[in-house]
Amino acid sequence: MENNNLHAMRHTAAHVLAAAAERLYPGVKLGVGPVIDNGFFYDIQFPEPIGEDALKLLTKEMYKIIKEGHDMVREEMSIDEAIKFFGDKGQDFKVDLLNDLKTKGTTKLNADELQEVDAEHPDVATVYKTGDFVDLCRGPHVANTKEVGVFKLWKLAGAYWRGKEENAQLQRVYGLCFETKEDLKAYQTMLEEAKKRDHRKLGKELDLFVFSELVGPGLPLWTPKGTMLRNTLDDFVWNLRSDRGYEKVEIPHITKKELYEKSGHWDKFKDDLFKIETREGHIFAMKPMNCPHHTQIFDRKMHSYRDMPQRFANTTMVYRDEQSGELHGLSRVRSITQDDAHVFCRHGQVKEEMLKIWDIIETFYKGCGFPELRVRLSLHDPSAPEKYLGTPEMWKDAEDALRNLVKERGVEAKEEVGEAAFYGPKIDFVTKDSIGREWQVATIQLDMNMPERFDLNCINEDGEEERVVMIHAAIMGAIERFMSNLIEHTAGAFPFWMAPVQIKVVSVSEGFNDFAVEVQGKLQAAGIRVELDITDENVGKKIRTAAKQKIPWTIVVGSKEVEGGDYNVNVFGQEEDVTVPAGELVARAIKESQFPNS
Amino acid sequence: MENNNLHAMRHTAAHVLAAAAERLYPGVKLGVGPVIDNGFFYDIQFPEPIGEDALKLLTKEMYKIIKEGHDMVREEMSIDEAIKFFGDKGQDFKVDLLNDLKTKGTTKLNADELQEVDAEHPDVATVYKTGDFVDLCRGPHVANTKEVGVFKLWKLAGAYWRGKEENAQLQRVYGLCFETKEDLKAYQTMLEEAKKRDHRKLGKELDLFVFSELVGPGLPLWTPKGTMLRNTLDDFVWNLRSDRGYEKVEIPHITKKELYEKSGHWDKFKDDLFKIETREGHIFAMKPMNCPHHTQIFDRKMHSYRDMPQRFANTTMVYRDEQSGELHGLSRVRSITQDDAHVFCRHGQVKEEMLKIWDIIETFYKGCGFPELRVRLSLHDPSAPEKYLGTPEMWKDAEDALRNLVKERGVEAKEEVGEAAFYGPKIDFVTKDSIGREWQVATIQLDMNMPERFDLNCINEDGEEERVVMIHAAIMGAIERFMSNLIEHTAGAFPFWMAPVQIKVVSVSEGFNDFAVEVQGKLQAAGIRVELDITDENVGKKIRTAAKQKIPWTIVVGSKEVEGGDYNVNVFGQEEDVTVPAGELVARAIKESQFPNS
Repeated sequence: MENNNLHAMRHTAAHVLAAAAERLYPGVKLGVGPVIDNGFFYDIQFPEPIGEDALKLLTKEMYKIIKEGHDMVREEMSIDEAIKFFGDKGQDFKVDLLNDLKTKGTTKLNADELQEVDAEHPDVATVYKTGDFVDLCRGPHVANTKEVGVFKLWKLAGAYWRGKEENAQLQRVYGLCFETKEDLKAYQTMLEEAKKRDHRKLGKELDLFVFSELVGPGLPLWTPKGTMLRNTLDDFVWNLRSDRGYEKVEIPHITKKELYEKSGHWDKFKDDLFKIETREGHIFAMKPMNCPHHTQIFDRKMHSYRDMPQRFANTTMVYRDEQSGELHGLSRVRSITQDDAHVFCRHGQVKEEMLKIWDIIETFYKGCGFPELRVRLSLHDPSAPEKYLGTPEMWKDAEDALRNLVKERGVEAKEEVGEAAFYGPKIDFVTKDSIGREWQVATIQLDMNMPERFDLNCINEDGEEERVVMIHAAIMGAIERFMSNLIEHTAGAFPFWMAPVQIKVVSVSEGFNDFAVEVQGKLQAAGIRVELDITDENVGKKIRTAAKQKIPWTIVVGSKEVEGGDYNVNVFGQEEDVTVPAGELVARAIKESQFPNS
Repeated sequence: MENNNLHAMRHTAAHVLAAAAERLYPGVKLGVGPVIDNGFFYDIQFPEPIGEDALKLLTKEMYKIIKEGHDMVREEMSIDEAIKFFGDKGQDFKVDLLNDLKTKGTTKLNADELQEVDAEHPDVATVYKTGDFVDLCRGPHVANTKEVGVFKLWKLAGAYWRGKEENAQLQRVYGLCFETKEDLKAYQTMLEEAKKRDHRKLGKELDLFVFSELVGPGLPLWTPKGTMLRNTLDDFVWNLRSDRGYEKVEIPHITKKELYEKSGHWDKFKDDLFKIETREGHIFAMKPMNCPHHTQIFDRKMHSYRDMPQRFANTTMVYRDEQSGELHGLSRVRSITQDDAHVFCRHGQVKEEMLKIWDIIETFYKGCGFPELRVRLSLHDPSAPEKYLGTPEMWKDAEDALRNLVKERGVEAKEEVGEAAFYGPKIDFVTKDSIGREWQVATIQLDMNMPERFDLNCINEDGEEERVVMIHAAIMGAIERFMSNLIEHTAGAFPFWMAPVQIKVVSVSEGFNDFAVEVQGKLQAAGIRVELDITDENVGKKIRTAAKQKIPWTIVVGSKEVEGGDYNVNVFGQEEDVTVPAGELVARAIKESQFPNS
């Protein structure tokens, strides 16, 4: 959360919501009420479950409380006092949290949890008073309820207490909250636009991918058009890598668990792995990452320093045993295609190799129409060494190397402690899509740990074994997730070079069908992806059908074109047709088809 | 076994071996002694295990028995008489077989087993006498031991009785047996040649693939060179398919078991599947075949007859939980890459689509340097309907369609009953490699069952739903297995177009290194795969290194080439260098790089 004032507003709004609920529904039991990306929510157990219509009543009461202008008053009490205080009020969930605070020093169940009541002073509970309403809370808040900006309660959902099915079911009331009406409005417009661009909806309309009940959730099947798009993007990445000395390798999707025990993945990710017991009783795993396999290819023979770096590229699938509830379209799946690559190099080669990868990333995302990338430096958290492999010295070396690189590149990079991979620090690239949402996309990771664990060396100029380092460098990363971003960013109107169908050739009427076929043939022979519409629909309908499919070019052919006249190319998203001389059509299309790598 | 006389010879030789063992080692217990591809074996329990040196003694005794000229005399006895007869002689294994024959009507444990004693007359046991020696056997044999051709005992191995670890361990004595000395000699030469060409040995020498203890047996990892070869072959197939209207699709490697229950694979192949229990307790399987997934892509929407056929191509891996003992290099693996394709079409389109696939197969195998393909028609076994899906009518239709196709193509096709897939009949293509071994390679399968099970239709001209049919059409089939054949067929000397490294540029001495780099650059810019040798080794050594790697062209550059003179291209396997004018080098290399698809 960048904006502290907005965060405080939202936090206060959550308290106001809880206060309103207490006034309107005496006997409510309050759970937690954290700040989220677009506002806040509060988990509440009402005496009787409320419906959507209750949101209006709650809103009215909230505005009343805001107008009353209560100060947000911070007070401290001992944990035992607090347990008595909330216990007397029947606030069992608060007592539950306080008991955790007392025994464990935290109210968090796991590291991902949004709200922690207090960890700094484990003997003290902080509460905030809003008029008569008192809530367990570590703050911060705005000074007075009048300072809560503009809010809107917009969604009601079920939520189990502490996320566990065996616990009581509460209702989660969601509120949007922004500083100004304009901000709220803009956000709501964005939400609507996002809904229109939803990749699940567009994926179906544009016939890109499909899910099957029989195959299972989180396991997308790719249609011919979707596969063409995926492969074209992957070819673009390969084109950029091939120019920089990468070579393709291929690996099986399963392995004995010993490989991941050695790499450390088994220890860290055991629960997320799909595990297999073979008929002979061995335990295999479906690969969650490709790096350990690639170490085994590197390690097949001893490499001379003359043959370093070795750069392996491999577009392949990895697997995560995600819970059904976590799955979402293409953005969270169980079989994940990665355009993965690993560079094995000497210490002195790290900078050059990372700069090459940085170039690939910039060229790729620019070529795909994303705006300039923001850079983030994801570092380890020295206070939690148990989360990482390797020594403090290794981490210092690796992190310094990345800092120098960012500096050399002359970009601003925010450092985020605790965001590193378990084997090394990362340079993360963040993009913003056309409706303002930020997505973390590519990442470059420096890894001194895998080479240590797998004892990876080259023979140096002195004939001695020298430990190498690894760089992990996926460009799209998870291709499914990248495609969900790309589809929503472009709203399905893909640039010519990547569009699964690049040109639709439409005949004005039956008499021109043969000529339309001829035009299609010429373009196809040049490698252009062309669809034909020679149905007996009227030409207006044919053009609208092509536009619905967001095909980059639509070319209508009739008597003028048959006689050798210019083509009128209808470019998707442009009002005016583009006039192309007959003799130039194929050449223009070929030019538009090139990868945008310059 | 094509040659009945040879089969009888080998069968008699096995009896002679058993008779010799009885004479030399009183108290031997005899297991089974079937005919195999190159001769015969006999599983024998010797009083004390014998060593390799005993093979000479046995051979001598066998020649003695042969010279004695015993007739092979067939006799019948009741099963109970036979049990008593062999029991009295202490031949427990024979008694074991006879008890099976008595209770089950067969001595076979499973359909794959080599030897069945007798099934036609379950009340009668047949024995063959060779002098004093009597063996339980259904024949046939040659008339007299003198007619056994030329044999050689060559290998001793351990074998559990009936292949089960809990049973007694016997020794398996292998014998080669042929009609003439020349045939035996030719076979032995072939064996030696096969050993030299062993793809496991060449795979390592040419650095194509590697196995890792940590990843596990049967799971090959592909190096940059091996991956280049795989992908080049796959691209050739795709090139042929793309010309014929195929489109690529992509699928996840796992699925809920429900998909395979519906397809029938679960029922047939459950034990061979890698099964996964997810964290939520669902059963998933790693895919053993791709067809069921492809049905789900086809079935995502209703297809008009105008859009038929739909042709899906997908190079992807399938998985088999093979037993460790069954694994062998690339020819039997646990993760199998298939260049799979499925055509969904109307009944009237089957012939045209199958002919297209036939064309692809012929072009591909010819292009890879294999001799003309032999064709086999694999039909179902009407006496074992439980092994197949679908109705007798469906099978008749499908098999008639394939017969017609073979007829139309004007080729001889041997019909093999019982060799069909469980969902439909097949046209199998068999090739012979350069040392005379036959391999079944591509197959075209007609399938009316999957469309039935998955209710696959198109909308016909009358606006009605019409059941479609499926054609399964992998070209290489299992790419790993194909590559093991290809490596052994070519002995690793790949044609220019498919070689992972096509040209080696060698500098005569240091002064020409820059020029060598320049030549490499020109060739690489044209897409040629070039390696450079500018080490300070002497030029002879450099040429020998290139030859060891079986690189198609080696070009040595020195003062003549720098001055614009002709290049001398050393073509692997040719004595004389080929002279290529400097200006033509790149164009020649480009020409050689083209897929051999004409």
